[in-house]
Amino acid sequence: MSNSKNAFYAQSGGVTAVINASASGLIETARQHGDRIGTVYAGRNGIIGALTEDLIDTSQETDAAIAALRHTPSGAFGSCRYKLKGLEENRAEYQRLIEVFKAHDIGYFFYNGGGDSADTCHKVSQLSASLGYPIQAIHIPKTVDNDLPVTDTCPGFGSVAKYIAIATREASFDVRSMCQTSTKVFVLEVMGRHAGWIAAAGGLAADVDHSIPIVILFPEVEFRQDAFIARVKENVSRFGFCSVVVSEGARWANGTFLAEQGTRDAFGHAQLGGAAPVVANMVKQSLGHKFHWAVADYLQRAARHIASKTDVDQAYAVGAAAVDYALAGDNAIMVTIERLADEPYRWQVGKVDLAAVANVEKFMPPEFISDDGFGITDACRRYLTPLISGEDYPPYRQGLPDYIRLQNKPATKKLATAFELG
Amino acid sequence: MSNSKNAFYAQSGGVTAVINASASGLIETARQHGDRIGTVYAGRNGIIGALTEDLIDTSQETDAAIAALRHTPSGAFGSCRYKLKGLEENRAEYQRLIEVFKAHDIGYFFYNGGGDSADTCHKVSQLSASLGYPIQAIHIPKTVDNDLPVTDTCPGFGSVAKYIAIATREASFDVRSMCQTSTKVFVLEVMGRHAGWIAAAGGLAADVDHSIPIVILFPEVEFRQDAFIARVKENVSRFGFCSVVVSEGARWANGTFLAEQGTRDAFGHAQLGGAAPVVANMVKQSLGHKFHWAVADYLQRAARHIASKTDVDQAYAVGAAAVDYALAGDNAIMVTIERLADEPYRWQVGKVDLAAVANVEKFMPPEFISDDGFGITDACRRYLTPLISGEDYPPYRQGLPDYIRLQNKPATKKLATAFELG
Repeated sequence: MSNSKNAFYAQSGGVTAVINASASGLIETARQHGDRIGTVYAGRNGIIGALTEDLIDTSQETDAAIAALRHTPSGAFGSCRYKLKGLEENRAEYQRLIEVFKAHDIGYFFYNGGGDSADTCHKVSQLSASLGYPIQAIHIPKTVDNDLPVTDTCPGFGSVAKYIAIATREASFDVRSMCQTSTKVFVLEVMGRHAGWIAAAGGLAADVDHSIPIVILFPEVEFRQDAFIARVKENVSRFGFCSVVVSEGARWANGTFLAEQGTRDAFGHAQLGGAAPVVANMVKQSLGHKFHWAVADYLQRAARHIASKTDVDQAYAVGAAAVDYALAGDNAIMVTIERLADEPYRWQVGKVDLAAVANVEKFMPPEFISDDGFGITDACRRYLTPLISGEDYPPYRQGLPDYIRLQNKPATKKLATAFELG
Repeated sequence: MSNSKNAFYAQSGGVTAVINASASGLIETARQHGDRIGTVYAGRNGIIGALTEDLIDTSQETDAAIAALRHTPSGAFGSCRYKLKGLEENRAEYQRLIEVFKAHDIGYFFYNGGGDSADTCHKVSQLSASLGYPIQAIHIPKTVDNDLPVTDTCPGFGSVAKYIAIATREASFDVRSMCQTSTKVFVLEVMGRHAGWIAAAGGLAADVDHSIPIVILFPEVEFRQDAFIARVKENVSRFGFCSVVVSEGARWANGTFLAEQGTRDAFGHAQLGGAAPVVANMVKQSLGHKFHWAVADYLQRAARHIASKTDVDQAYAVGAAAVDYALAGDNAIMVTIERLADEPYRWQVGKVDLAAVANVEKFMPPEFISDDGFGITDACRRYLTPLISGEDYPPYRQGLPDYIRLQNKPATKKLATAFELG
């Protein structure tokens, strides 16, 4: 074991239905290489666990528990929203990281997150050069927003997309049943503050066998109330009902979010409402139709019960590949998903330099949005369909998914000093 | 076929994930008795289809299509909210029904709905006596609200309960992952304007293996803001986070719904908000915690993708039993579910006089609500658990549930007159 180094793994940012599948892939693969990777320590609550030397000793978990992570949503070790500053701005943070890594003989840094995390991971990857501490830093992609560049998709997205596509189809069936005498317009608000990938998935609810009228409001398309109302009116007239999928990031021409419509409660406090009730009330006031609205919020990103099998497989694969790349000597890379073919769908894992990833956001390309701005194109459909394909059901007990809760035993602290988070 | 009569079937009120399973059970059973039941006509958009002579000829649908109704949510023939008035108030409606029934040789009236529908069905069952038209009327229970009396549960409820229990568990896992640096309180709004059965199901998310702090706000318990805030505060202090499940029917001591908090939009219009944002903002203002909220709305009652197997089986069974009872000569009854044992769960179908059902609502009994008013008791857990047990997944195609859309071909009209709905 003389060549062996320990590893650090942390989950970062908003959690997903499948980020634990990446953890499962990583830890199971590391266990197969016990000659080169000693213990995998997980940061409790993400990078904060590294800074405060609050490490979880994952070797205390059974193989069965690590396998069960594959079907358990959320972040099993805790996640956080905490972005490391630049080396020049907060050198103390990086010195602290090195102190902790050195104390626990950590040679591999695996960071599982989105865009901000890619940036942090990139900074850590430079520690060998900047502060003389030898470490390999590898980023494992995760974000429901699907906004990381280079990779064909981001683990976490496919499952949210599947959830939203199913929810839109199911609710549309419901509204269609009742529209003669009751609700005619249903509005579903979905995540995606900057990019409309999740909203686009609502468009999959309609297909050749299911002529469901769906109007999508993307963050990428400035909201035009007149055109929107006209489209809803036309759909109700033709189909008897209309479904609307609105991104939380939908905004007016001046950049204001629809959700920030200046709503105030009885006490005059600004109300943090959603975009869905705003849009629904707009329809009511313009057309008089009875409406219903839903805000899926965390339900969509936590919905492991209906995760996409493609997504689960890819999440597991990027975790496993991170270890393989590390053992092959890679540093400062992000693991990627490469699409080889749309149908039948084929993919493989790949890698990209982190420098090409950090601080780049991927939006819906114009050719994925229909000319009128309210729908998706066939090209978008070809892109999305494989990502939501396949089911990967968790086990159930007494009617509920049997998700695992790890023991999360702390590793013994080795440093005498505490650390104040900045 | 001399003894044979045709049947009329209609779906009424809010649709569910499993009301079509009842239709499937009814039509499949009727097809097995072609010597006594000729054609099953379905009302297009419920009872309105009977009044306007807009009948769907279900014999035009294949056996495979009728079987597929078992896994398809919503109302396949259309539903409506339309309550027949009393015979004295609107005799014309009943005379029109008889005219249509006579024209299509209908001897069986099957009505699939909730409390209001039971009342309508009861009135139709009296037509033999009151207007001399021989008909057998049988009510098939359906309501997500679970508020029909006598029957142990109502088909439709178990699947919503399962959805809410799972959603609460999944979202709670999510919040727990992030609570150190982000969201600490998550609020989920669920259906149930009068009865708290659906809200109660949120309590199932926590069990011996999952110590999740959940505060439930029932319509049956008057809302006390101080006690509520104190409980949330205690949970956040002890667990780091708190989940809240609020019924849309939660109300203040004066009877006002929490959702009607006098919220106004930028134009001063009363905003039809939800209870969830009201409760979430209350927590923010009192305790300062970051929050998220979701409103499941139709997503919960349409969620056939995660329907309870118990519920699907029971929905099918009550539809099938309605035909059996009709052939045995019954009239003016509702089919019921009778519980024989909690664990292992055993049940059978039964029947009850419609006179005992119409206009009676079943609320959560006090012994199902914990003393503090914010949780469920073990007795409630014993009642609910079997109702959400088992999964009954629909088939999938390209990542989406392969729900059926029937042809719904109209039966040839036989009457020269139209009918104006009242």
